[in-house]
Amino acid sequence: MPNIFFKKKNTIRINDILLSLNLKKKKHNFIVNDIKELDEATKDDITFFNSFKYVESLKKTKSKLLITNKKYNNLIPKKIDTLLVDNILLAIAKITLLFYPSSLNDIYDNDLKIINKKKFPKLKFGRNVLIGKNVKIGKNCSIGHNSIIESSVHIGDNCNIGCNVIIKNSVIGNNTNILDGAIIGKKGFGFFPDKKKNIRYPHIGAVIIGKNVEIGCNNTIDRGSLSNTVIGDGTFLDNQVHIAHNVKIGKNCIITGQVGFAGSSSIGNNVLIGGQAGISGHLLIGDNVQIGGGSGVIKNIPSNSKVMGYPAKNIRNFLKQNKLND
Amino acid sequence: MPNIFFKKKNTIRINDILLSLNLKKKKHNFIVNDIKELDEATKDDITFFNSFKYVESLKKTKSKLLITNKKYNNLIPKKIDTLLVDNILLAIAKITLLFYPSSLNDIYDNDLKIINKKKFPKLKFGRNVLIGKNVKIGKNCSIGHNSIIESSVHIGDNCNIGCNVIIKNSVIGNNTNILDGAIIGKKGFGFFPDKKKNIRYPHIGAVIIGKNVEIGCNNTIDRGSLSNTVIGDGTFLDNQVHIAHNVKIGKNCIITGQVGFAGSSSIGNNVLIGGQAGISGHLLIGDNVQIGGGSGVIKNIPSNSKVMGYPAKNIRNFLKQNKLND
Amino acid sequence: MPNIFFKKKNTIRINDILLSLNLKKKKHNFIVNDIKELDEATKDDITFFNSFKYVESLKKTKSKLLITNKKYNNLIPKKIDTLLVDNILLAIAKITLLFYPSSLNDIYDNDLKIINKKKFPKLKFGRNVLIGKNVKIGKNCSIGHNSIIESSVHIGDNCNIGCNVIIKNSVIGNNTNILDGAIIGKKGFGFFPDKKKNIRYPHIGAVIIGKNVEIGCNNTIDRGSLSNTVIGDGTFLDNQVHIAHNVKIGKNCIITGQVGFAGSSSIGNNVLIGGQAGISGHLLIGDNVQIGGGSGVIKNIPSNSKVMGYPAKNIRNFLKQNKLND
Repeated sequence: MPNIFFKKKNTIRINDILLSLNLKKKKHNFIVNDIKELDEATKDDITFFNSFKYVESLKKTKSKLLITNKKYNNLIPKKIDTLLVDNILLAIAKITLLFYPSSLNDIYDNDLKIINKKKFPKLKFGRNVLIGKNVKIGKNCSIGHNSIIESSVHIGDNCNIGCNVIIKNSVIGNNTNILDGAIIGKKGFGFFPDKKKNIRYPHIGAVIIGKNVEIGCNNTIDRGSLSNTVIGDGTFLDNQVHIAHNVKIGKNCIITGQVGFAGSSSIGNNVLIGGQAGISGHLLIGDNVQIGGGSGVIKNIPSNSKVMGYPAKNIRNFLKQNKLND
Repeated sequence: MPNIFFKKKNTIRINDILLSLNLKKKKHNFIVNDIKELDEATKDDITFFNSFKYVESLKKTKSKLLITNKKYNNLIPKKIDTLLVDNILLAIAKITLLFYPSSLNDIYDNDLKIINKKKFPKLKFGRNVLIGKNVKIGKNCSIGHNSIIESSVHIGDNCNIGCNVIIKNSVIGNNTNILDGAIIGKKGFGFFPDKKKNIRYPHIGAVIIGKNVEIGCNNTIDRGSLSNTVIGDGTFLDNQVHIAHNVKIGKNCIITGQVGFAGSSSIGNNVLIGGQAGISGHLLIGDNVQIGGGSGVIKNIPSNSKVMGYPAKNIRNFLKQNKLND
Repeated sequence: MPNIFFKKKNTIRINDILLSLNLKKKKHNFIVNDIKELDEATKDDITFFNSFKYVESLKKTKSKLLITNKKYNNLIPKKIDTLLVDNILLAIAKITLLFYPSSLNDIYDNDLKIINKKKFPKLKFGRNVLIGKNVKIGKNCSIGHNSIIESSVHIGDNCNIGCNVIIKNSVIGNNTNILDGAIIGKKGFGFFPDKKKNIRYPHIGAVIIGKNVEIGCNNTIDRGSLSNTVIGDGTFLDNQVHIAHNVKIGKNCIITGQVGFAGSSSIGNNVLIGGQAGISGHLLIGDNVQIGGGSGVIKNIPSNSKVMGYPAKNIRNFLKQNKLND
């Protein structure tokens, strides 16, 4: 599926990629179509391998051109042409930027216009609503005052968007409400820390919000870097929740006020999270998990667990230990 | 006092209520006026009993029609006609929705208009200020740019409302400042978790803000479900504070940045709460309590206590324990 | 340097100052120019001494008129005329208000106008952008829809300001991005708690933001009271970060989502702070410090430390203790 939010350069020659990575030119300056994760890459795309976790995907990838480093080199199938770099993520960032030059900085959408009754004849909308190009909005929706829907955003049927909302780079399912002041789809907080100057990371992912979802006031939900940030069907978010890039939240979860998710964690279905809890990055939280308010989750949580504390542990242990210490 | 924010259906026949609860019809299809808590119900209102805490109110209620379940049935005075249900809160939600059909979803206020100098000749106001119907604003007030004051909101004398503020379903006392980006009066995060589909709870309460109050930037203060959310006179809230539905905060409290309150807790007078502390739901915090920054309060706190920690405990114990463990 | 954001009364006579403090009039009703901290005061300014920490500055100050209380009286050089008060900070507040009467309450800026293409011919800007008097904006900048830049704000070259942003009392360096919904430069949460009525503190400081900085969505950064709030070059802030008045953050720091800083703390260079961590007030955090997500920092942290926990301690101890307790 082509990226509807970020314009991709048609193709890039391999030697331009090698140049950006300070690697030696190839004799045959062939064409590369896109940069994709292992599972999604076609034979014309460049991909990357940066963790043992993805060995199964590595075996199945259709890509014939792969970024990695020395450490992983002996794992790469011989039919794949390997580009060795010191910092894989930095290389991905550079190549992503070659393909998607507009994905680095979020400047305001200059194509926005005051909403036009003729284009959206059945939509209920307030004052000063700004709509970008190629926005699709379903039946029986409403958009509140001063809200901004940037170009190419899709909104399903029966959705209510509040006031002062900003939505960009997002696809929203049916029967979903976005409450006042939410900011959805801006680039994630991803970059390479460097003592001289932090290097920004391009973010070409989207925010995919399911059906029957509620997004609370003043929430911030960042789009994904290469993959998407996902909020599953039937999930409700309270006010002031922060969701970083690439987080995947399952179905029918309840996330209460001021909860925060660091990047790239996956949350199962029917998960309840109490107020102000924090979930570290790159974690796996199972189905039917309950996380007490104020918890700090810093390791994976298996399905059907109840945890609380900082760091979060079995809730019985947490309560027992804290009774004794009172 | 009639509800000024949500339009009530004049009356509803008892058999329509019983139908919504899947209960058997009554022979005499009498009229019910409203749904109210025990203390406020008149002889024509339906009320409910869902906790031993409210036994005193039960004895005094004027209502003659009450929702409860088996567990409490023998406590109900004989003169009261009792409707037994499995889930009392769900029944309340259904009946509330019958009386107040517009209270379930917060769609933007379609009655707003750009403020009219003729209607508010002495008010100082910025650009793009939107005002609903029946809004009352006292003497010597100001309203900043892009702010929205929805229908029926009352604002006292000498109040300053910042920019990008949204106020709905609220009554605000004299000499109170609401700072930029605050969102006040949206429905609370109340619903019934259900693996198939979360069921929303209607919220017909208001936000009642006292005199000499300050509400910080980007605060979110949700309105009550049946009762009100209350901020007492002289209380100051810092930035990014979140206050859930039905919370009652006393007078002259100081609540610093990023503090969060879950629903229905009561906070006394002269309470100081440090940054990022969280207060769980349905708690009772006394007068003159001091809660250290970052604390997680999960039980009642008596007046004149100083607590800190997660879970919050006596501050001396917290500091002693943490010295030893350093 | 004169204060560009708050209009100062030219001069005030000493007896008006003494009157506001309930002190006895002087025979020679001389003129005072301004109120300044010890280091910055000239011979015509009034200054103050309120902590042993500032003894070195006291020795060097050029001021000849100083507020303090009994406790410190014997430390004051004899050439300085001393005004003894019970509450030094309250006295400073009263005098500051005499000099800067507009600094107590933040009312919306009434001098704002819809941006004028003629005044900013090369600026890219969205709809409904409001600009105050004497605003300076550098080359190659953009300002998103509905944003407000209040009077006298300076913005450097190559800056991108998002949508729904509010900036006041601030100076912003080159190559800096301010993302959607950030509120920068409002008065800090400073006042004197009093059981009868909290007394507001005037804030005449600014927010000074360096070069190559990124300020995340829905951040709140308050201006300083007498000194400034400072964000150093190359520092990146994620979404929903709160920075109180007088905080100084060094260069090249990375502050992730929902972190909060209480007033007047100083953070070194190259500091990394994980999500939802909180830093208490008046602390000193060194260079190259790493603070784990969710931490509550309540004491000074020396350079090159890694800390985590609540209260934050050496990260190895935190992890070891929590392994044992699992």
